[in-house]
Amino acid sequence: MEAVLGIDVGGTSIKVGLFTPEGELLEERKIPTPALVDAQAYATVTEGIGKILTAHDAAPENVIACGLDIPGPVAEDGTVGFLPNIQLDPEGLVGALTEAFPHATIAFVNDANAAALGELWAGVAQGTSSYVLIALGTGVGGGIVVNGRLIAGAFGAGGEIGHITVNRDEELVCGCGRCGCLEQYASAKGIVRLYLEECEKRGVTPVPVEHATDTLSVFRALAGGDECAKLAVHQMCDYLAQAMALISCVTDPAMYLIGGGVAGAFATFAPELRELFSRYALPTCKDVRIEAASLGNQAAMYGCAYEALRLREQNVL
Amino acid sequence: MEAVLGIDVGGTSIKVGLFTPEGELLEERKIPTPALVDAQAYATVTEGIGKILTAHDAAPENVIACGLDIPGPVAEDGTVGFLPNIQLDPEGLVGALTEAFPHATIAFVNDANAAALGELWAGVAQGTSSYVLIALGTGVGGGIVVNGRLIAGAFGAGGEIGHITVNRDEELVCGCGRCGCLEQYASAKGIVRLYLEECEKRGVTPVPVEHATDTLSVFRALAGGDECAKLAVHQMCDYLAQAMALISCVTDPAMYLIGGGVAGAFATFAPELRELFSRYALPTCKDVRIEAASLGNQAAMYGCAYEALRLREQNVL
Repeated sequence: MEAVLGIDVGGTSIKVGLFTPEGELLEERKIPTPALVDAQAYATVTEGIGKILTAHDAAPENVIACGLDIPGPVAEDGTVGFLPNIQLDPEGLVGALTEAFPHATIAFVNDANAAALGELWAGVAQGTSSYVLIALGTGVGGGIVVNGRLIAGAFGAGGEIGHITVNRDEELVCGCGRCGCLEQYASAKGIVRLYLEECEKRGVTPVPVEHATDTLSVFRALAGGDECAKLAVHQMCDYLAQAMALISCVTDPAMYLIGGGVAGAFATFAPELRELFSRYALPTCKDVRIEAASLGNQAAMYGCAYEALRLREQNVL
Repeated sequence: MEAVLGIDVGGTSIKVGLFTPEGELLEERKIPTPALVDAQAYATVTEGIGKILTAHDAAPENVIACGLDIPGPVAEDGTVGFLPNIQLDPEGLVGALTEAFPHATIAFVNDANAAALGELWAGVAQGTSSYVLIALGTGVGGGIVVNGRLIAGAFGAGGEIGHITVNRDEELVCGCGRCGCLEQYASAKGIVRLYLEECEKRGVTPVPVEHATDTLSVFRALAGGDECAKLAVHQMCDYLAQAMALISCVTDPAMYLIGGGVAGAFATFAPELRELFSRYALPTCKDVRIEAASLGNQAAMYGCAYEALRLREQNVL
């Protein structure tokens, strides 16, 4: 058998998916890890993967491709950029993986980009050559596919749509150091903030919000007729639609896929998002499809595995 | 010999370039034509081209590729969209060209997209796989190349960067029916308008402007220290830099090429444009190269020839 691995790289654990080359997920397992910067940590990774392979009667030599998705930029040439949220020595990890899985093509992929590719391999984007995945999570990420290929970008910033400026009047500073980024309004954190601000502005007591990204409470309030929740979600949709209208003037995709945690409420905000998009978009592009992503939080794991597999096929040809 | 044709399709004439498959321009000739909608008009085209071929000892059978660049959208599948400024029956013209040049692969390409490809074939973008050409002319067009391929777009709006909204407060309506498009500020018409508005606002008599797109007079005034011209060019650069910062969050090119008539003054406004871009861009992308395009008004002719040639190679493979 030939085996393909897709690995979500996180700060305190990795999530490993074992796939067939056809994209069937055989097993998914979380492995707690120390910071991925030394031999001991790499061994935790390779031994953990070894156990998964053994459970499926596979040997390390059977692994033909191994993708790793990471929360940070990866340039066109595969180089990993600055990672603000995790500790990782990319070269060290690749070295250890290459030693453990000698036949594997290894590739790093930005997490949102990986999620986009996952949808192409095994999700709702199958057969679509040109689309954009927008991941509305703690932040806002994007993965842009054109002609069936990911746009990684010359500096690894391809699809960094969370940092499209949508409000020049904003004074609150974004994580990137600039102001008025889409991420400040359409992320989970952004929606909760918009809601609390709206309540304060109107002198209304907000529903209890458990943490800074608790959009569930905001959407629940919206369902119960909360006027401030309605306005907050409207603002989120408005900024998101503006950004999508801009993206359509650049890559003009056939479809937008909304993913990430906030997409759990997609059915609630989709009608408004679609209406605002068709108001802001160039008339030529206004019939674009706007759908929910289908692979949930497994998308990136699928996608990085797929990218490593495609890279291998390119190298073989 | 094998011959390649690149044809600029205009409203009252076509401009034909005869190329070698290696990208050498052998001859360029303008042919006045009636509206390209009937057999007589098509004959004017094919006979005119026939004469050029004869002058170079080539026969119609030697033409292996024929590109046509047009001022309007062309979708990924080669379909021509609505053309506001010229009269053209694309199918009729292709039929006549196919009959006249039986071995030619024929392709329509949007003019700004063609200009981008021209720079890749024979201009300053040679060897660059990811860049954006911004054509500042009567309007603002764009051609986006990623992984060495043009982004035509699902609806033919790939690279329609002139219609990126950069000013939500604008009340003046753009040709597309929306307000605040980049084209309203960074086109030749936009710059002249910004200048005249600035003079009016300050109660200053403007320098004589000969027509609505006479940027030459505005840049000449700027060189002479005209404060209003300085402000107008600053505003143009500011909106353009904002749009470029957005584009970098989407496709993250390695280089921007500024072309079109306004690029004649590139050396004048480049320092300000570069400074504003690095202020607005994501820090990751701020070292992008911003250069002048190199093929002038021949770029689109080169590029559509090249695209037809590449299409032929794809079909042959």
